[in-house]
Amino acid sequence: MKTVAILNGPNLHRLGKREPAIYGSQTLDELICGIRKIANAQGVAIEHFQSNHEGELIDKIHAWSDAGIKMGIINGAGFTHTSVALRDAIAASSIEFVEVHISHIHSREPFRHTSLTAPVCIAQISGLGAFGYEAALEFLLSRDS
Amino acid sequence: MKTVAILNGPNLHRLGKREPAIYGSQTLDELICGIRKIANAQGVAIEHFQSNHEGELIDKIHAWSDAGIKMGIINGAGFTHTSVALRDAIAASSIEFVEVHISHIHSREPFRHTSLTAPVCIAQISGLGAFGYEAALEFLLSRDS
Amino acid sequence: MKTVAILNGPNLHRLGKREPAIYGSQTLDELICGIRKIANAQGVAIEHFQSNHEGELIDKIHAWSDAGIKMGIINGAGFTHTSVALRDAIAASSIEFVEVHISHIHSREPFRHTSLTAPVCIAQISGLGAFGYEAALEFLLSRDS
Amino acid sequence: MKTVAILNGPNLHRLGKREPAIYGSQTLDELICGIRKIANAQGVAIEHFQSNHEGELIDKIHAWSDAGIKMGIINGAGFTHTSVALRDAIAASSIEFVEVHISHIHSREPFRHTSLTAPVCIAQISGLGAFGYEAALEFLLSRDS
Amino acid sequence: MKTVAILNGPNLHRLGKREPAIYGSQTLDELICGIRKIANAQGVAIEHFQSNHEGELIDKIHAWSDAGIKMGIINGAGFTHTSVALRDAIAASSIEFVEVHISHIHSREPFRHTSLTAPVCIAQISGLGAFGYEAALEFLLSRDS
Amino acid sequence: MKTVAILNGPNLHRLGKREPAIYGSQTLDELICGIRKIANAQGVAIEHFQSNHEGELIDKIHAWSDAGIKMGIINGAGFTHTSVALRDAIAASSIEFVEVHISHIHSREPFRHTSLTAPVCIAQISGLGAFGYEAALEFLLSRDS
Amino acid sequence: MKTVAILNGPNLHRLGKREPAIYGSQTLDELICGIRKIANAQGVAIEHFQSNHEGELIDKIHAWSDAGIKMGIINGAGFTHTSVALRDAIAASSIEFVEVHISHIHSREPFRHTSLTAPVCIAQISGLGAFGYEAALEFLLSRDS
Amino acid sequence: MKTVAILNGPNLHRLGKREPAIYGSQTLDELICGIRKIANAQGVAIEHFQSNHEGELIDKIHAWSDAGIKMGIINGAGFTHTSVALRDAIAASSIEFVEVHISHIHSREPFRHTSLTAPVCIAQISGLGAFGYEAALEFLLSRDS
Amino acid sequence: MKTVAILNGPNLHRLGKREPAIYGSQTLDELICGIRKIANAQGVAIEHFQSNHEGELIDKIHAWSDAGIKMGIINGAGFTHTSVALRDAIAASSIEFVEVHISHIHSREPFRHTSLTAPVCIAQISGLGAFGYEAALEFLLSRDS
Amino acid sequence: MKTVAILNGPNLHRLGKREPAIYGSQTLDELICGIRKIANAQGVAIEHFQSNHEGELIDKIHAWSDAGIKMGIINGAGFTHTSVALRDAIAASSIEFVEVHISHIHSREPFRHTSLTAPVCIAQISGLGAFGYEAALEFLLSRDS
Amino acid sequence: MKTVAILNGPNLHRLGKREPAIYGSQTLDELICGIRKIANAQGVAIEHFQSNHEGELIDKIHAWSDAGIKMGIINGAGFTHTSVALRDAIAASSIEFVEVHISHIHSREPFRHTSLTAPVCIAQISGLGAFGYEAALEFLLSRDS
Amino acid sequence: MKTVAILNGPNLHRLGKREPAIYGSQTLDELICGIRKIANAQGVAIEHFQSNHEGELIDKIHAWSDAGIKMGIINGAGFTHTSVALRDAIAASSIEFVEVHISHIHSREPFRHTSLTAPVCIAQISGLGAFGYEAALEFLLSRDS
Repeated sequence: MKTVAILNGPNLHRLGKREPAIYGSQTLDELICGIRKIANAQGVAIEHFQSNHEGELIDKIHAWSDAGIKMGIINGAGFTHTSVALRDAIAASSIEFVEVHISHIHSREPFRHTSLTAPVCIAQISGLGAFGYEAALEFLLSRDS
Repeated sequence: MKTVAILNGPNLHRLGKREPAIYGSQTLDELICGIRKIANAQGVAIEHFQSNHEGELIDKIHAWSDAGIKMGIINGAGFTHTSVALRDAIAASSIEFVEVHISHIHSREPFRHTSLTAPVCIAQISGLGAFGYEAALEFLLSRDS
Repeated sequence: MKTVAILNGPNLHRLGKREPAIYGSQTLDELICGIRKIANAQGVAIEHFQSNHEGELIDKIHAWSDAGIKMGIINGAGFTHTSVALRDAIAASSIEFVEVHISHIHSREPFRHTSLTAPVCIAQISGLGAFGYEAALEFLLSRDS
Repeated sequence: MKTVAILNGPNLHRLGKREPAIYGSQTLDELICGIRKIANAQGVAIEHFQSNHEGELIDKIHAWSDAGIKMGIINGAGFTHTSVALRDAIAASSIEFVEVHISHIHSREPFRHTSLTAPVCIAQISGLGAFGYEAALEFLLSRDS
Repeated sequence: MKTVAILNGPNLHRLGKREPAIYGSQTLDELICGIRKIANAQGVAIEHFQSNHEGELIDKIHAWSDAGIKMGIINGAGFTHTSVALRDAIAASSIEFVEVHISHIHSREPFRHTSLTAPVCIAQISGLGAFGYEAALEFLLSRDS
Repeated sequence: MKTVAILNGPNLHRLGKREPAIYGSQTLDELICGIRKIANAQGVAIEHFQSNHEGELIDKIHAWSDAGIKMGIINGAGFTHTSVALRDAIAASSIEFVEVHISHIHSREPFRHTSLTAPVCIAQISGLGAFGYEAALEFLLSRDS
Repeated sequence: MKTVAILNGPNLHRLGKREPAIYGSQTLDELICGIRKIANAQGVAIEHFQSNHEGELIDKIHAWSDAGIKMGIINGAGFTHTSVALRDAIAASSIEFVEVHISHIHSREPFRHTSLTAPVCIAQISGLGAFGYEAALEFLLSRDS
Repeated sequence: MKTVAILNGPNLHRLGKREPAIYGSQTLDELICGIRKIANAQGVAIEHFQSNHEGELIDKIHAWSDAGIKMGIINGAGFTHTSVALRDAIAASSIEFVEVHISHIHSREPFRHTSLTAPVCIAQISGLGAFGYEAALEFLLSRDS
Repeated sequence: MKTVAILNGPNLHRLGKREPAIYGSQTLDELICGIRKIANAQGVAIEHFQSNHEGELIDKIHAWSDAGIKMGIINGAGFTHTSVALRDAIAASSIEFVEVHISHIHSREPFRHTSLTAPVCIAQISGLGAFGYEAALEFLLSRDS
Repeated sequence: MKTVAILNGPNLHRLGKREPAIYGSQTLDELICGIRKIANAQGVAIEHFQSNHEGELIDKIHAWSDAGIKMGIINGAGFTHTSVALRDAIAASSIEFVEVHISHIHSREPFRHTSLTAPVCIAQISGLGAFGYEAALEFLLSRDS
Repeated sequence: MKTVAILNGPNLHRLGKREPAIYGSQTLDELICGIRKIANAQGVAIEHFQSNHEGELIDKIHAWSDAGIKMGIINGAGFTHTSVALRDAIAASSIEFVEVHISHIHSREPFRHTSLTAPVCIAQISGLGAFGYEAALEFLLSRDS
Repeated sequence: MKTVAILNGPNLHRLGKREPAIYGSQTLDELICGIRKIANAQGVAIEHFQSNHEGELIDKIHAWSDAGIKMGIINGAGFTHTSVALRDAIAASSIEFVEVHISHIHSREPFRHTSLTAPVCIAQISGLGAFGYEAALEFLLSRDS
């Protein structure tokens, strides 16, 4: 069974619990649950991992890569703009990642306009909200077939 | 009938005619045709316009805005990084645009990493290929319902 | 009969139609009409041209220069900050231009604080609203007498 | 009786005494005298103050603000580009200032292109010569009526 | 009982153990103990957490925020200047933090003059030594009463 | 009798008279009066001086230094970010200053994030409001005993 | 018959009509006529197009590329320094362009020292006057034989 | 028995498992094993630690420092360029570190040319491959004898 | 009788009273007295003025210029690096100034390497100590004869 | 007899000996020989000098200038981008130089895009290969007649 | 017999003669003598050249390259940071160089942190003292076997 | 007999032979001759050396330093702004240099405002013409006595 890995960075476990006017009332669990249903319907499994710890995210990328996973979705949150180590882990893995940001980072503070991880991902989606994950999934599956 | 406008900037009429290994063999007409089918199936009309002329793109945004269109997809191509005038037209219109780039601009030359129009759009999709237009359409329709 | 040329750049034809709270409810036609009355009363003709097309603005500067016009008012709007070609046209013409901006560009986004055309104009007025055109006219006529 | 305050910064008391080919032969007294006549004719009083001392200019802004003055014209001269303290005084006052520069600062040295005070004024006039004060006055009175 | 949370970043557990000539001979435990006494005397509880792990600090902010804590003191140490993730955690929490630095960061290396977390805190104290924590506590309690 | 000097820069005499919602309703006189009471209770005298004139502030630092004062609190306001002369006066004096800012300068405009005087002071307090002066006093006295 | 295309950007139609002391008294027509004679003598045709409109220049590059033209000379004038769209058109075409500037751009204003189009051309000639076109032609023909 | 500590940062546990053409087929275990043999032959022990977690690397530096270790080799990998916290830990420790990079960081991307940790190490070796660790060891032992 | 004016900026009245190891034990009065003797011996008068007030320095330049003085020596101290107003006063005067700095500003902090006033002076002497004033005097007199 | 001087900087004596696929198989001697034939046919002599020594190149410029040579061609190679001394020698000479680069420097590394010598030459040719020398010669002779 | 070339740049002939506390008392001759012994023991010859002349260093690189030498060690000293010509010589040669610096350049002045020659060398060693040459030799020989 | 060394950099041997309107008609020989007379009259010898070769200038500094010379005057000309090697030679020598520039470098091109050698000299004189050498000599002798 084909698998798509989803990696969520720091603070994303708070989704749906704060500022629902901005981020919607959907929790991270509900979001992932929805993505999993869409994937399963197409015979694809979803692996999901969220952490506030940079090192755990890097460990997981290596573990998934060793397990033979080929497609991924990453929302590095705050690490997107500061982590060379995360970038190196992505580049060293055999996973092709689509970078997703729920809010539209290019209309926020200048330090969020630059992504260290984007150049080693194959695409970036910014500002589509939770739907960004779904679009990334569809794109990965369409390339894979 | 609801309408989504699609605006394509300079050189995009060449799609599918050059470098098919990179951009695929689909022409711009075929791409728009595919999007139109998806939209029509949901009872939504598509307006499409491509030009190599910055002024014509600005004219069209105003015309669409006057015609009451509320949702748009824009691929400003080379103007994305240099045109304050296009930005001002978007900001002055009543259309909510999703910015789409076929290639992954954030892994290309540094001058393509900055978008003047992104801050006045509601989202940006980079590197999903032709599927980026489809994802933008789905996102706009999901918000609108 | 002496003539003053007025050149308005992209998006300015929308004046008075949008955001009247900010820009007033006066349309571009009404604004020009008012300026024309003041000019005519002093035996001066007004030539006016607005376009969203950089090339048309450049063409017009050359045409006016060939027609012997010596005084001008320019609101380059978004092109103010990006167009070397417009700057070159002004510099190559025999027209002395006063640069006018309706809003106060120096208190807006940083990229609007720099004008490529200002150094080849003889003055700049920023933030006087529609009255800026009138002040520019008075200044040009006072120098000319 | 309504009052408009005019504040002139360092070196401006030399007006008309030096380099008449550039700045004209009109002295600062004559310039203010002319502005006062125009104002008085419309039932408006003029308060004028010039100083080479940053602190005195700040003191005066506070004094005028306490006296209930609501409209002002400021030519900060060299302080325009360096004084955060002057900026803070303007921002803390209840006076709406139009910033005026006799020469066209945007075609002079780069360090004169940036104004620290412009963002807390409502407009900027650069390069209209002595007429710039008159235009500022007209603008303030037109807004006030 | 009201609670004030204190979060200390990397290397701060070494306080008092090294370079006593510079940092004093007080350990982190003694410092926190002193703060706790002052707080308890006013009927206020102290929660304290130190870690060298960015992820653990972020986890703790969320935990405290969920527990209803409203006031905090943060010394992010080295993370102050590099962690967007920590900044996002502070911004997403309901805790108002005062940022404290024991040494005077503004007279040290240039890269320590910029704080990514300061803009989402309500105040910053730099160079007051261990007393900075006490001043922050007093300030928070005075606002709260 | 030991003395602590307090130096307040431009515009600070307006404290409590404007924008009480932001700065509180306490005037500068009341603030100093409160500090003086705390100091006197510990047998310490307070010298206070406020001016909008950079030169007077420099004069006063030299006068205090000659009078043997060893401890000071300085709120340079707008001069903080622009005055090398004030910095040189502090460095040349024998007074150890704590720099205080009532508002939180690190979350305001970028040009307020850099302090020219901070590197020659021994500490900086930003955003504690009027309490910042009190904290600075306590710190100075604790070091002195 | 082999063809070399010559593309001239904004304001170049004024050649010979203004500032003959600087640019010589030769008009653009005369210049092209001279080039054509040299080319024809070698059995080579010349296609020439001048426009002040960025979009028209892009259109023409695509048209020429479709018509099978392989060699070109481009003087982008003001667009040289600002147009990513023109650069993309050159890169997407099958024409090898030599970039020519009549004046010596590297000894003019700093913003003219950087060319966005040069990296996608095969050579650049700056400051040889009208002769630059002739040198470019000779170079292209020598490579082609 | 004298001890040399070796600290390896994120992703280095993948050594020898990926891209053997670039990094060689030697694993991290083999590399450390080789170093240990050389050290033991000279009566020196090797402590080794690898982690993808910034906090664990900092913890380890403190632990080794407390254990009295005086000499170290550090390959901070991606953290080299972004971690002020790691820099502070090195500086606060009593261990003299030689910084080692397997690849030649000065011929890679610009963000890898700057090392935050280098100024607090005593030397840097870049591009000697696995031999870099051996050279660092020899250097440390030669200084120590 | 010919006159040379000497203008000394902020903090220079402290000369000889502080840090004699660095600046020598000569006071400003003694320094000026020595210069005056040298000048008088050549039939030249010395005018001297020191102030910590930027405005007073500007006033004095204008007064001297009105009094017909043609040669000057200026040590702007801290104002050297920040005062556009002082620069404008020098430029507007008819006095040719040599800029003198007692310490060697080019080997101090970077912000002291840039002088706003140097470009409108005819020479700069840095680091010759009190002798710099003497060298400047000799130079001015040698040019004048 | 009129003379044109040709100055070639460091490493250019290797022409034709290395990387013939890139630079062609023509040696520097052959290149100069060809230029000399063209010149002689028009009654013009060629002086040629190549050196890897910055000082020798400067000496030669002075020698040629003293010998009355008025026209030159310079390929400064690596010194183009770093040598202020070479620039000064060109500026101080009475020779008008055309700057020539065999490869297209504007599409190579960024540090090759800036030429310190270009602003004191009258033109620059980049990327025409050996033909660039010939074009420069033709241009110089056409101006001279 | 295999040969390793060692090239030492400006001022390195002073080694051991100045500041022995910093650089050790070993002269350059002694250092090279030591390296030669190690090399000879492995059947490898050493070529050594030191010069203060940029041109001579470049000449030597070409000479060695022509003589068939394949391995080199370079300490460019001051030229490391400014010489594009030296960089070009290295790149044009067939020698693989390891760059060595005796002191730790990355903890010295900022302008020493950037090496123009490093990207065309295969490795860099900084701060290992004279041992750096030995480590470079060992590395080169280990790769060659 | 005490000796002062004078070192003149590239192009200075041209003094008096070119542009006498700017640099005066005095040759370098005459200048040095004049300085030598003044020195000899005080029992001091002058050593002079001029070269266009960076390496020769460095050699000479070392030779003079070895010969026990303690005082020097240096006009590095173009090398002033680019030569780290020259800076290192000055720093490594036991000679205290005063840096002299005949023209006023701080009012020329921006790249001449920065001196790499100034921080390792004890003073800088700019714009005093040939007299600058005399002032430097007087200063050195006054310190030495």
